[in-house]
Amino acid sequence: MFLITLQLFTSAVFSFIILPMADKNRYVIGFDLGGTKMIGAVIQGERVLSRCKKKTGAEEGPEAVLRRITGVIKTVVKEAGLTAGDIEGVSMAVPGPHDREKGIMVYTPNLGFRDFPIKELLEKEVGITIHLENDVNSGTYGEYKLGAGKGYSHVIGLFPGTGIGGGIVLNGRLYRGATGNAGEIGHMIIQADGALCGCGQHGCLEALASRTALTKDTIAAASAGKAPKTYKIAGSDFKNYKSRVFAQAYKNNEQAVIEIIERSAWYMGIGMANCVNIFNPEVFVLGGGVVEKLGTKYVKLAEKSMRAHALEHLSKDVHVVEAQLEDDAVLLGAAHLLLDEGK
Amino acid sequence: MFLITLQLFTSAVFSFIILPMADKNRYVIGFDLGGTKMIGAVIQGERVLSRCKKKTGAEEGPEAVLRRITGVIKTVVKEAGLTAGDIEGVSMAVPGPHDREKGIMVYTPNLGFRDFPIKELLEKEVGITIHLENDVNSGTYGEYKLGAGKGYSHVIGLFPGTGIGGGIVLNGRLYRGATGNAGEIGHMIIQADGALCGCGQHGCLEALASRTALTKDTIAAASAGKAPKTYKIAGSDFKNYKSRVFAQAYKNNEQAVIEIIERSAWYMGIGMANCVNIFNPEVFVLGGGVVEKLGTKYVKLAEKSMRAHALEHLSKDVHVVEAQLEDDAVLLGAAHLLLDEGK
Repeated sequence: MFLITLQLFTSAVFSFIILPMADKNRYVIGFDLGGTKMIGAVIQGERVLSRCKKKTGAEEGPEAVLRRITGVIKTVVKEAGLTAGDIEGVSMAVPGPHDREKGIMVYTPNLGFRDFPIKELLEKEVGITIHLENDVNSGTYGEYKLGAGKGYSHVIGLFPGTGIGGGIVLNGRLYRGATGNAGEIGHMIIQADGALCGCGQHGCLEALASRTALTKDTIAAASAGKAPKTYKIAGSDFKNYKSRVFAQAYKNNEQAVIEIIERSAWYMGIGMANCVNIFNPEVFVLGGGVVEKLGTKYVKLAEKSMRAHALEHLSKDVHVVEAQLEDDAVLLGAAHLLLDEGK
Repeated sequence: MFLITLQLFTSAVFSFIILPMADKNRYVIGFDLGGTKMIGAVIQGERVLSRCKKKTGAEEGPEAVLRRITGVIKTVVKEAGLTAGDIEGVSMAVPGPHDREKGIMVYTPNLGFRDFPIKELLEKEVGITIHLENDVNSGTYGEYKLGAGKGYSHVIGLFPGTGIGGGIVLNGRLYRGATGNAGEIGHMIIQADGALCGCGQHGCLEALASRTALTKDTIAAASAGKAPKTYKIAGSDFKNYKSRVFAQAYKNNEQAVIEIIERSAWYMGIGMANCVNIFNPEVFVLGGGVVEKLGTKYVKLAEKSMRAHALEHLSKDVHVVEAQLEDDAVLLGAAHLLLDEGK
């Protein structure tokens, strides 16, 4: 018992020594490295002191991207009136699987990176410690800390766009899994033998409810003459089918497309119901391009389907809300993960 | 900063006061209240000091069940050479949703309980604090602490029997969710519009891979003359289709039934793949009647399907093992939840 007492007092002393300074004296950089754009910002608590946005320009190769990242970091440090030494670290949200310990981006198709040692290379350039995070996890954490998920401690983030990103906050902490890559809710199979997914499987939530899924069905309908107004806007080129095309279908009362959207929201609700039954969460935060453009109408459809498919004793108290932080969710979440976890 | 120091020292002192005695001086009762049988045992660390098993006899009504539970508890306390005052608590694993805070079994169809205040009633009878736990959660925790999941910290337990129970251990702790009822992996929809489930939905994992699912397909095949050896053993009565009937189909080389089992294991693998993509776990522990009777052959089929359906960077290091503790998993897990969480 003496030993226990000693240990406790020792750890109390250690806690005191390593206790971080109050947030107001801490500066971190949140960084969102996306496929098309990058945004960096110096964060002090809930304040954004400076921010800088650039095109990623992945087509010019990893070194050019690295140069631009370095430029953004140096710019925001300077604009915040600070030096590299004032910054606790850069928390960099990246798309795709990465090795968090080693700071390597394992495979990022839309950046053309493979086994890219971004941490080591960047630290040499900017003299600040770099921490890698998953982009959707960061976005979910941002919404949990400062946005639509504030005040809850069991939060599921779902972000339908080209794919469907997922993030999980459990008991007030980001859930990362055994090797740091948990949260691939978009690749939950909800219809065995269903539509083909980009990952090669069939019937993933993403294959049934992402913008890609919407596009596949709509482009076929439009090309077959069943959605003439949509065809007039977006034609038959896959690349033209942005989320706003689907929002326009509602305005144009384009029934064939509305049915496709409603079916997609219905599948989204099945994915959400599965999360309810597994996680017993308090709230879903829905964001991403599809939700931003289709708005409350879409969210309500998904929510209705969730309630129709989940176990009632688990779904009755679950909330469904729209994301609030838009472009800033990822960098704010990344920054706050570093502030809260200090590593 | 002085305040912080003070707080830390205070909490150190409090920790000291409320710190439980070393496990070897702690006695708890693990209790498994099942639909057909109940087992109680006095546990001291990893040792079972006494155990007692009775039929539940739910058909005689809640009061008779309560009397038998009381009898089991008093018997194990006495046989361990202890008195009620020596026991820290009874950790009682129950089937179905319950209110853990209030100690109420909300709805338990196979016991005929509804809003049953079991904690209050039992505490009066035995004079020991009663804690409710979910049975499958307890079983998973038992395997994690003392059985097939030992040494891992991200463990998913799946137990196919009449239904499919699920339990989740994340970062070395049982995951309970916002209201204590997480882990309903059996009701994850993996085939929208698929086979009808007991919960009323279509295409739940349970509707495709439980013994009930096996029985529905086999009884139809057997009744149509496609599985004559199985028909000879189990006939056309649903109740005759125990897990051993399916094990027998392998021995008899009954192809129609073997195909049904293999398809079921394939669906089980899809459910597991979804868990891999969402949780990024280290290990699956598979148990329950179906796994106990069909053994390694079934587990290997499910594992193969899991690897075929999950994201490769997440599944490559995942282990799949068979449960080891059989009947004792639930009561040991319940006991150790109380020992580890102390509440």
